[in-house]
Amino acid sequence: MAPAHPPIPTLDDVARAANVSTATVSRCLNDKSKVSRETRERVMRAVDALGYTPNFNARAMAARRTHTIGAIIPTMENAIFARGLQAFQETLHAEGYTLLVSSSAYQPDLEAEQIRTLVARGADGLLLIGAERGQQIYDYLTRRAIPTVLAWTSSFDHGFASVGFDNCAAMRSLADQVQAMGHRRIAVISGILAGNDRAEGRLRGIRESLRAHGTDPDSVPVIETGYEIENGADAFETHMKRAPRPTVVMCGNDVLAAGALSRARAMGLRVPEDVSITGFDDIELAGLLYPRLTTVHVPHRQMGRVAAQELLETIAGRKPRAARELAVSITMRESLKAI
Amino acid sequence: MAPAHPPIPTLDDVARAANVSTATVSRCLNDKSKVSRETRERVMRAVDALGYTPNFNARAMAARRTHTIGAIIPTMENAIFARGLQAFQETLHAEGYTLLVSSSAYQPDLEAEQIRTLVARGADGLLLIGAERGQQIYDYLTRRAIPTVLAWTSSFDHGFASVGFDNCAAMRSLADQVQAMGHRRIAVISGILAGNDRAEGRLRGIRESLRAHGTDPDSVPVIETGYEIENGADAFETHMKRAPRPTVVMCGNDVLAAGALSRARAMGLRVPEDVSITGFDDIELAGLLYPRLTTVHVPHRQMGRVAAQELLETIAGRKPRAARELAVSITMRESLKAI
Repeated sequence: MAPAHPPIPTLDDVARAANVSTATVSRCLNDKSKVSRETRERVMRAVDALGYTPNFNARAMAARRTHTIGAIIPTMENAIFARGLQAFQETLHAEGYTLLVSSSAYQPDLEAEQIRTLVARGADGLLLIGAERGQQIYDYLTRRAIPTVLAWTSSFDHGFASVGFDNCAAMRSLADQVQAMGHRRIAVISGILAGNDRAEGRLRGIRESLRAHGTDPDSVPVIETGYEIENGADAFETHMKRAPRPTVVMCGNDVLAAGALSRARAMGLRVPEDVSITGFDDIELAGLLYPRLTTVHVPHRQMGRVAAQELLETIAGRKPRAARELAVSITMRESLKAI
Repeated sequence: MAPAHPPIPTLDDVARAANVSTATVSRCLNDKSKVSRETRERVMRAVDALGYTPNFNARAMAARRTHTIGAIIPTMENAIFARGLQAFQETLHAEGYTLLVSSSAYQPDLEAEQIRTLVARGADGLLLIGAERGQQIYDYLTRRAIPTVLAWTSSFDHGFASVGFDNCAAMRSLADQVQAMGHRRIAVISGILAGNDRAEGRLRGIRESLRAHGTDPDSVPVIETGYEIENGADAFETHMKRAPRPTVVMCGNDVLAAGALSRARAMGLRVPEDVSITGFDDIELAGLLYPRLTTVHVPHRQMGRVAAQELLETIAGRKPRAARELAVSITMRESLKAI
């Protein structure tokens, strides 16, 4: 009689596939420092290909709970993810979980490495930002049965629970507002698009809005740049040297907008009299700048709290995975005025 | 013949001391979810009292390296620790280490719990902020031989390596400057002093400077408050309702100062014409506010980089522990003017 399920891969299977001893496989899984990089990569490929999990049995897995949760965010250097993460941690802590956070510096390779580290360190579950990453990472998380929630996105493309908002629709509605206020000469500062579905969605939202208002999206200048204050400042200066000069510079997030605002002052340009500036995220900074920033308000605390709840439910095996979409709104402040 | 060293405590010793089976001790160390809180606490007390370490042998310890480093910072929510941490991570990553970060929300109990979690998850070393914490934590780190570096402090009181600066001297020199510019009616907004040697040192620096200038430190109003923007704003408003009104409000950090600045605007007070405001840290925000903030410049990146180097040296066993003191300076900007 054929087995009802495919056979569970064993340590022996991995060793055979990678052409190493079982002791080497074991070392790769537990103590990577003792194995050459080349061997480790070969073994990990075999582990992934076979879907080998050191403790397959669900009961054994449950018993091995560490009450530790891992989160990987693109950056710790600005406050974009800080408030949501704090709420995520508070919710987890109330349930007896400790949060360990890692920062991937917006690098997919580094994120993949950190996912493996957190799993190796025994994380009961993971929080990841956005949905765009290599399929092999999703395959890895699925095979290892790691409870995972994606935040800052409401994508369900990969079958993982997510908690976020529609970046495209949110930015489209801000662009609609900007155009309703009479702006026609629009310039855009976007974050790096590769591997960042948030940046991609926001730019798409602006383009859709332009098209709906009868403007060719390709006629609007877009500068794609890193997420540092200085990047926003430099891109702003480049935009403002164009003729004719834009009447509004729409920025992919508040950090870029803060850079634009500071460079405007250095250039002797008044905001919003000479040029309007908009952001995205409504981090604390947005309300502290002068003039205060018109931006898309993201419910950071709610997102963090709901992500924690979803993750705990997933760990408990109590819930089907789903995409949770939260409402965002536009916060009108002094940096945007009608023309 | 008597042994040259005290006998190494065994699992049996711990089990006997805690009056449980060796299996229970093992579960407490590896899988705390399966043991009642009461039992776990009793066992952990015995582990600490005996100085039991699962793998005492140094060679075994080295072989067990995970290339994971833990850092516990008081908060992720504002950018105070972000830039230093980023440099810390970059330096570690270049050496093949992954950083896991935990936030203690300025709560000593939570920090102690997170230290244990990171050690249990196999951290090869730890970065902690400041030097003020319970002696039992230092004893725990010493007994478990966990390589640890303290940052944001140059204290060597506990015999652990540290990388920081003299908070007291730095704030004293800013207070000297403030008084040299003619200010006599000074008000202070301080962070919570308990368990925070940075806040305590900064306040002490102001008091020393006042005394040196012939002012009774006790005559100067001090509001001690949490580290949120809103706390700074509320404290500023309270100070400005005093008669006579202060001519300068010195804040324990830039976040409190940002709150003060924003409340000044809401109250219709011009900075620096009506009142000067100073900060501490020189986080990115300080240069983005309007007016830009006069503050103490802390070399965040250098501190993070040096902390990582010290920690790696400590892990490698190559270096005696020492306190590294970095130079800080005053960044004069528009929020402070002479009267």
